[in-house]
Amino acid sequence: MLIVQKYGGTSVGSVERIKEVAKRIAKSKKEGNDIVVVVSAMSGETNKLVELASKFSQTPKRREMDLLLSSGERVTSALLAIALTDMGFETVAMTGRQAGIVTNGMHTKARIEYIDKKPIEKELKKGNMVVVAGFQGITEVGEVSTLGRGGSDLSAVAIAGSLNADLCEIYTDVDGIYTTDPRIEPKAKKLKEISYDEMLELASLGAKVLQTRSVELAKKLNVKLVTRSSFNDNEGTYILREEDIMEKPLVSGIAIDKNQARVTLRGVSDKPGIAAEIFRKLAEDGVNVDMIIQNVGLEGETNLGFTVPKDELDTTKQSMEDINASQSLEFDQEVVKVSVVGVGMKSHSGVACTAFDTLADEGINIEMISTSEIKVSMVISEKYGELAVRALHDAYKLDN
Amino acid sequence: MLIVQKYGGTSVGSVERIKEVAKRIAKSKKEGNDIVVVVSAMSGETNKLVELASKFSQTPKRREMDLLLSSGERVTSALLAIALTDMGFETVAMTGRQAGIVTNGMHTKARIEYIDKKPIEKELKKGNMVVVAGFQGITEVGEVSTLGRGGSDLSAVAIAGSLNADLCEIYTDVDGIYTTDPRIEPKAKKLKEISYDEMLELASLGAKVLQTRSVELAKKLNVKLVTRSSFNDNEGTYILREEDIMEKPLVSGIAIDKNQARVTLRGVSDKPGIAAEIFRKLAEDGVNVDMIIQNVGLEGETNLGFTVPKDELDTTKQSMEDINASQSLEFDQEVVKVSVVGVGMKSHSGVACTAFDTLADEGINIEMISTSEIKVSMVISEKYGELAVRALHDAYKLDN
Repeated sequence: MLIVQKYGGTSVGSVERIKEVAKRIAKSKKEGNDIVVVVSAMSGETNKLVELASKFSQTPKRREMDLLLSSGERVTSALLAIALTDMGFETVAMTGRQAGIVTNGMHTKARIEYIDKKPIEKELKKGNMVVVAGFQGITEVGEVSTLGRGGSDLSAVAIAGSLNADLCEIYTDVDGIYTTDPRIEPKAKKLKEISYDEMLELASLGAKVLQTRSVELAKKLNVKLVTRSSFNDNEGTYILREEDIMEKPLVSGIAIDKNQARVTLRGVSDKPGIAAEIFRKLAEDGVNVDMIIQNVGLEGETNLGFTVPKDELDTTKQSMEDINASQSLEFDQEVVKVSVVGVGMKSHSGVACTAFDTLADEGINIEMISTSEIKVSMVISEKYGELAVRALHDAYKLDN
Repeated sequence: MLIVQKYGGTSVGSVERIKEVAKRIAKSKKEGNDIVVVVSAMSGETNKLVELASKFSQTPKRREMDLLLSSGERVTSALLAIALTDMGFETVAMTGRQAGIVTNGMHTKARIEYIDKKPIEKELKKGNMVVVAGFQGITEVGEVSTLGRGGSDLSAVAIAGSLNADLCEIYTDVDGIYTTDPRIEPKAKKLKEISYDEMLELASLGAKVLQTRSVELAKKLNVKLVTRSSFNDNEGTYILREEDIMEKPLVSGIAIDKNQARVTLRGVSDKPGIAAEIFRKLAEDGVNVDMIIQNVGLEGETNLGFTVPKDELDTTKQSMEDINASQSLEFDQEVVKVSVVGVGMKSHSGVACTAFDTLADEGINIEMISTSEIKVSMVISEKYGELAVRALHDAYKLDN
């Protein structure tokens, strides 16, 4: 098998950890696999560099930040290659540039344009292993750029896609994706498999494990992912195409997003174009609107509700005052969004109904509802958030 | 003026030091100069990386060491560019690759093959300053390589040469080149000017300030150098072509080299080719022979003496036993080499004589003598080394 392994910051956070990781890689190599490794900076290093830069400027140039930040992954890749070579496994370290990762010029949050797979393939053909510095690439004109949050995952997925790898293993310090946050519901179970789309909807469960953009890219390139811990030998969670999942449970997980605030505009003129005006303004001002609901109102007026991230609420207030499109504005920060996610919903009715019944039984009022083919999201009062998660986890029997 | 400034590790060893350096650069820029800066890694960083690598291998691959070590200078260059930009001076950081520094493939001790000056010139034309990561370059095929000890000086001199800069300022933590080591002779004076050739002969005085290879390159490219301290505003020492030196003192300085051992071969057959055989063998075994003297002996035999670095004495013993070219071998580690250096010697006779007289007056026996156009070197007993330096410093009136 050709396997791309990605190790995050905590997995390579010390000399001892790098040695452990080297042993894990060596084991897989001895089992006959061809291996490409993608590494993050040692944990803490990137923050240290960001802090150093902040001593010189509150608005450091993004181009220079990229030169600065890309050094952390270079160090890890060189050290790991040195360790593996010393263990008798010929290994070549590569920077993002040397690994053929070509990005656009958006410094500190670049996108991968394409990957020239020849340099890595050349080393693999010689029987060598390759350790690539994640998080970074180079533009067509030679500028170093980093890929932003979750960038090393993105490097790994993109490389796996370009090489047509059999598997992309994402190693972190958690075991995989759970049916819900185990800190809220101790009975939460680790999932064996999950579809790309479910994973995207469960972002709040997996955000620390895997960023949305990496899952999207994996889906696009059809890269089979598994997220596992580098601290034990437990099996992880596979993230696959829906059609490759053996057993399709009705519901895969319950997500909770505590970073939402609800905005209600009352007395909006019910005329064509008014909603477009509101959301165009918010988009221009950089606000990420999530759920949107509109109720029919009385006498040519309507009520419009939507949610935004809590830290974008001030911007939202200003934006709404600027366009003055409603008679009154209401904001509620004390809400959470609870979501029930599962591909099984597509073929089974009644899933949403169970969710509403469950919350009603607990006496929890649902303030907003939004549904997709594989998800039911409900905005409720913040104080009932954890209760709702546990009740729903129970209702869908996710603990067995 | 177009000035290339190079700052060593202690000069950029902390946030505060980098800020001081930024102020110094800004001052020169405000005076109307175009400036290219070359920086080393923050002091201690390179050693830290070397030590990290040693945790994984006692024989780390040189290619990966270069990836590892080149990261330190990247960090400094980015930080300094961020600082200068924040002060209102548009500044671009460049890696060795981006600055067009092309090296051969000798990892960890590469040579600069050539410099493509276009990238730096392009930025200078826009009025920007450029901060280049020293110590590193890239091969024609994209491999990162470092330049070995004194590599950042070499980067600076090579860039100054390629840009035809008016001056290359080497900033360290010492004020310049002194007539002798001030720890031995407190009356030592800082030199205003010195020729490239004298500087090369005075290597032992300037080694910590400037490596031989950088002086050689400066001479070859006719780069006007000045070494100064970044910790004060004292004038430094200019290193120039001999013809550009205003006042040519008879003697510029007294150097002492404590790292020499004397080897004497007695009873060497006095036949053609025997000396060649001895020194070919030593060269093959990697021994750096310095002074060589041969005395005419008696009855077809001769005595041969030479000096080698102390830490190469064991190799030398083995080499001499291998070829068995003499009747007896003598080794003396308790010697030093004291040298009187000055371009004025070329046109004035009697300089060597003064040296011999001075040592004789002090009762110091001279064991070996070697002279060049601008230098008289004498090997004497180690215990008289410092006395000899002070006496010679006095004899040539170097304290005024």
